[in-house]
Parts: sequence; structure tokens; C-alpha cells
Amino acid sequence: MTIKRHLTETRFSEAVISSDLIFLSGQVPTNIHDDIKAQTANVLAQIDTLLHDLGSDKTRLIDATIFLKDFIDYDEMNEVWDRWLPEGYAPCRACVQANLAKPEWKLEIKIIAKTK
Amino acid sequence: MTIKRHLTETRFSEAVISSDLIFLSGQVPTNIHDDIKAQTANVLAQIDTLLHDLGSDKTRLIDATIFLKDFIDYDEMNEVWDRWLPEGYAPCRACVQANLAKPEWKLEIKIIAKTK
Amino acid sequence: MTIKRHLTETRFSEAVISSDLIFLSGQVPTNIHDDIKAQTANVLAQIDTLLHDLGSDKTRLIDATIFLKDFIDYDEMNEVWDRWLPEGYAPCRACVQANLAKPEWKLEIKIIAKTK
Repeated sequence: MTIKRHLTETRFSEAVISSDLIFLSGQVPTNIHDDIKAQTANVLAQIDTLLHDLGSDKTRLIDATIFLKDFIDYDEMNEVWDRWLPEGYAPCRACVQANLAKPEWKLEIKIIAKTK
Repeated sequence: MTIKRHLTETRFSEAVISSDLIFLSGQVPTNIHDDIKAQTANVLAQIDTLLHDLGSDKTRLIDATIFLKDFIDYDEMNEVWDRWLPEGYAPCRACVQANLAKPEWKLEIKIIAKTK
Repeated sequence: MTIKRHLTETRFSEAVISSDLIFLSGQVPTNIHDDIKAQTANVLAQIDTLLHDLGSDKTRLIDATIFLKDFIDYDEMNEVWDRWLPEGYAPCRACVQANLAKPEWKLEIKIIAKTK
């Protein structure tokens, strides 16, 4: 019944593992002055790294919630998303509009995945 | 430790089952020109179908997140929601305002349920 | 494979327990005329009470989604949040802007935790 935490700070942990479920904090772009394609790729790369560090990967995605700052970016975000996903392994998904904590962030992605 | 996916496309799966948890993608209305009551009933019927196809049903709901386009529709959405739920089986719920991927969509519902 | 529900009404249950996971409904302030600090403390106290009633506590938090009405309140909400969390036990977190069901609510927090 232990909970494993990863990269824990005062405010949040980047990941929490409970049984075989991996929860990630909402991942946000570090390249805040780039366009939506680059910001999406940046966020997905951070998800790859976190899952890798926890011994999982993007074939084990269960659920994704995408908070998108502006639906004008929807098609370009999806283009990067679709290319990133391995065929046949798409998670559940919801994508809604939301303003985010930093005005430069164009998206934030929240992931639930499974351990290997 | 297997993950079961249901109706998987490039972008998302309609459902993903991990152990005894069923995650559904955000369900959106197919009757996009109808009013909020009809759109809510439409979304809930899609949830019924997905759960049925996975051997579960609405007595096994765990969690619902309702993204509502406009809170002007809150009471009418709730009326359909309350009638749909079997008495004594209500899941956890959060309902917040969010703009959705298609401007005609008045709501999107994200469900976590349990297998039977 | 049973589901345990807590404080179940027609529309939602305050908590649903499935295996070792505790899902809480979005918790909202009861002190609706107070400022963000007081509303945050109020919501977190409700979470404490629910977890306590289910035999868990805030050292068992897995995931938090914070819906904040106005990011002008971000720093003050975080101040109360940071002080509330026991050191080394922070859950995953996402915080996005969202309008809420009552205009006086400044935040709503959705929690997933683990049983003890």
C-alpha cells in the first residue's frame, strides 16, 4: 500500500505511483516563446522522460487530459500529438480550453499511465 | 499488467481498461444542433453503450468530470443527469465551465468506472 | 470488486472508493463571501475531513486538480496549499482556470488519494 513519489517539491510531485498506476502532474512547456507545435513537442518529450525514469513508456498511456489555451492551435497540436503516439496505443483523451498559470503556456497535458 | 483498449484510433481510444478501472474518453454530443437536454441525453447514452460493450454499466460509475460550455445550461443538464443515475449509485463529480473543441458542443463528460 | 460510496446524494457522492483508490468530488468553499485564502483553507479542511472519515489523510494524496476562478488568486491559493501539505508528501497537481457553478466560488479542488 505504499505510494512512490518522484521529483517531489513543496507544491507538487512530478509523478506519483500507486500500485500499477502512474499519475503525472500537468506538464507545461519550458520553451514558452515557441509556437504551438514546438510547445507540444516539448511537453510530450517531458512526458517521455518522466515515464522512462519510472520504467514505463508511451505504449502504456491510459488517459490524457489536454488543457489548450486557444482552440486556434487545435489542429497543429493534434498533428504533433498524432505523430508522437505509437500506432494502436492511443490513450483515452479529453481536450478542453483553459487559461493556464503562465500566459505564455499554450497547453498543459495531464497523464495517467501504467507501470510495466 | 496488460492494458485493454477499445475503439482505438490514431488520436485516442474511446476506452482503456487497466486492472478493474475503465477510463472513457471525453464523450461529446453527436446531435450538435439540439438543446442541452437532448445533448446531455445523447452523451449519457454513449456512455451507457461504451460501458455495456465493456461488460459494465452505470451502477459502476466511480468518477465524472463534466465540462459545460455555459452555466446557463446547468439546471437542465442536471435534470437529465439526475434522472439518468440509478438511485444510490452516484459517482464523484466535478462540473466546470470550459469551451470545447466544437463550438456547437454544449458539454463533454469524462468518466472513470469499474469493471464488473 | 465492490465500490464503496460515501455521502451519496442523487447527483453525486462526496467520495467513491474502488480498491485502494479514493476519489473525491470537486470540493468547493462553504464560506463563499470570504477571500481566496479563507476559501482555500475551507476547501482543504473539507478534504481533510473526508479523508479522515475514510481512514486516510493528506499524507496519502495521489493527485489534485485545482480549478481556479481567477489566476489573480494563484499566489495566495498556493501559499495556503503549500502550508497545508506535509513536507515530502505532495501529490501530482494541475491547476487551470475555470469558471465554477457558483459565481462566488473562487476555487474547486478534485482529489484522488489512497486508502491506508
